Amino acid sequence: MATFQDIEGGGITTPLGFQAGAAACGIKKVGAEKLDLTVLYTPHETTAAATFTSNRVKAAPVHVCEEHMQGNDIRAVIVNSGNANACTGEQGLADAREMAALTATKFGLKPEQVFVCSTGVIGTPMPMDRLRAGFETAAKLGEDPLPPTLAIMTSDTVPKYRAMDVALGNGQSVKIGAMTKGAGMICPNMATMLCFITTDAAITPDCLRGLTKRAVKYTFNRITVEGDMSTNDTVLVLANGLAGNTVIESDSPEAKAFYEALHDMMLSLAKAMIRDAEKATRFIELTVHGAASEEDAHTVAKAVANSVLVKCMWNAGQPYWGRVMHAIGYAGVDVEESKISIDFNDVPATRQGIAAGTSVAMMREATDADEHRLTIDLGLGEASATVYTTDLNENFVEFNLLD
Amino acid sequence: MATFQDIEGGGITTPLGFQAGAAACGIKKVGAEKLDLTVLYTPHETTAAATFTSNRVKAAPVHVCEEHMQGNDIRAVIVNSGNANACTGEQGLADAREMAALTATKFGLKPEQVFVCSTGVIGTPMPMDRLRAGFETAAKLGEDPLPPTLAIMTSDTVPKYRAMDVALGNGQSVKIGAMTKGAGMICPNMATMLCFITTDAAITPDCLRGLTKRAVKYTFNRITVEGDMSTNDTVLVLANGLAGNTVIESDSPEAKAFYEALHDMMLSLAKAMIRDAEKATRFIELTVHGAASEEDAHTVAKAVANSVLVKCMWNAGQPYWGRVMHAIGYAGVDVEESKISIDFNDVPATRQGIAAGTSVAMMREATDADEHRLTIDLGLGEASATVYTTDLNENFVEFNLLD
Repeated sequence: MATFQDIEGGGITTPLGFQAGAAACGIKKVGAEKLDLTVLYTPHETTAAATFTSNRVKAAPVHVCEEHMQGNDIRAVIVNSGNANACTGEQGLADAREMAALTATKFGLKPEQVFVCSTGVIGTPMPMDRLRAGFETAAKLGEDPLPPTLAIMTSDTVPKYRAMDVALGNGQSVKIGAMTKGAGMICPNMATMLCFITTDAAITPDCLRGLTKRAVKYTFNRITVEGDMSTNDTVLVLANGLAGNTVIESDSPEAKAFYEALHDMMLSLAKAMIRDAEKATRFIELTVHGAASEEDAHTVAKAVANSVLVKCMWNAGQPYWGRVMHAIGYAGVDVEESKISIDFNDVPATRQGIAAGTSVAMMREATDADEHRLTIDLGLGEASATVYTTDLNENFVEFNLLD
Repeated sequence: MATFQDIEGGGITTPLGFQAGAAACGIKKVGAEKLDLTVLYTPHETTAAATFTSNRVKAAPVHVCEEHMQGNDIRAVIVNSGNANACTGEQGLADAREMAALTATKFGLKPEQVFVCSTGVIGTPMPMDRLRAGFETAAKLGEDPLPPTLAIMTSDTVPKYRAMDVALGNGQSVKIGAMTKGAGMICPNMATMLCFITTDAAITPDCLRGLTKRAVKYTFNRITVEGDMSTNDTVLVLANGLAGNTVIESDSPEAKAFYEALHDMMLSLAKAMIRDAEKATRFIELTVHGAASEEDAHTVAKAVANSVLVKCMWNAGQPYWGRVMHAIGYAGVDVEESKISIDFNDVPATRQGIAAGTSVAMMREATDADEHRLTIDLGLGEASATVYTTDLNENFVEFNLLD
């Protein structure tokens, strides 16, 4: 039973009390009329939860946001695309702080109530003159969720946004809205994954943070295009309580309903990122069962998903299960070759570590589909993990050669 | 001062007492006149040292050789290309044992005195009828090092072999001969790295094993094409003592001279593999200095070398140092962004984690060369590590789509 339903055309501005604007500042390209700056604002006190990249090299705005998340009343978000403000040293930090200050001044906030994100090229100073010139336009708030979604895109080919109405099960309901960008962790612009989620739910900080952390773990952290990890990856959830629901507490039935919606929201956006992955042609749902631990299952799944060898197999639509075996073998997890089973969709490819005897034609029927499942059973335990990934093809490489 | 010099046209059969033969059995392709089986033999007692893949999924011949290396008098080696005899279960083990038995019977040896290797497609039963039919031809021994070298090639475009005369510094000399195959760890045939080295040196088992392990660590284990690791990788060194030198003992000046030659032999063959890597266009020597430990240095070097993002940069000949920073950041090693320096050849790209201010044109002069150095200084300690690697390009992917 679905406890939530989509709101047609909705997005980040759909929950009560959230508005946003966008501007073309020429950060993506001087003189280009492409939206590249957005400001999101709610005049109401919020509860916020955020997760950041685990890359040791962090962009300047990530450092600033980590500081600002020490407090707990984020009212505004400013995001630019076209420049990642990463590997930019002290000047980069000053620029990120100035972005917060500009926004704070505009809305009468403290700078630490502003969340700052950047995505784009790395190692190049922020063109702050152009950003300043476009700021006032970006800060003209409205209800349309599309312009802000367009303003955070880099190599994305489609805007990714969604809103839903969530029935909490106690007769009350809240709205969740979201926008995300990212199309593979790799691109000429160091494509970052950014996701902004708004909700008018009333929810405790502990509950929101716990649910956010868990949902990110099973959605955004389970997608992989080529194994690289950006310096800027950020997920932010802002809740302003305007729905007037009874405050959602941890471990309550309402928290469970809210989690299911939040998880579905993030999973659908994560899958949309994979489907829009740079020049990829296939979408693969890869599950490892029978592992000794969930960590082992995830480690094996990542090794297979990121193997260039396996990715070429997917691109060719071929059922070369031996390539899967070899990637399982070097994952660094204790496995027993003779216990491994591999299936393409529901077609057995490998049993007890050797060919299952299925005809190549039958296996190809599964692997030649644009979307298919690869299922591995390690035969060792009860734990499992699923990741979502893509193939690798010549266009992907060519695309990455663009300057 | 070089203590060794090359023997023109020499190879695996150059050291005293080693002979080899080769045959076209149709294992690579039925009816094709391509050499795909070779037998190497010495009638003299040997000292042997071997290293094997650390992949948990091991080919049948790797299991058999690990058993046979328990003894210490390997007299013959049989190698086929075209079929890896991997993921072939009990039948694969039986086939590998039969290859050893055939060779043992031919030369009046015990099966455990025979070393068995296979390289080629994975998961397909060995065509033992064709191998048996070609065996007698392969066992016709001769002095030419080229046919055996050709017989172990899969996707290699050039045979890789070499021999050298080694002055031990005590007025005595020995010969070392070698052949290797491998052209990237990835290919339609699951390209394995195989290396066979013969020497007529008299050397103790402990000394040979110690020097072999060390030399492999700094040569074959320091090359990477795309991060995948084969199920069959094997290095074997066989010493038969016919040079009549005083037996080389561990920690002696002669052991040092022998090591220098062995290291140079392996490094040159490892570099030849990288230069022949599937469809690669650039050769990169990547050194990480200033690490807290050699392991940290190696971990960072591997992360950068295997980043698809960085490989695309190399292919394009571009100095996108930000991509290097981001790969350093996710290597899983404690680094301090503001202490990192990056150089392309001797051109500074990054200082204190930010742009060094060198013009892109100057950096491109380095990165646009077919061969160049990438040097990273973490600024944390005294340890360093060097790896050798290649770019990634559209031909590489296309090549891997061939059936």
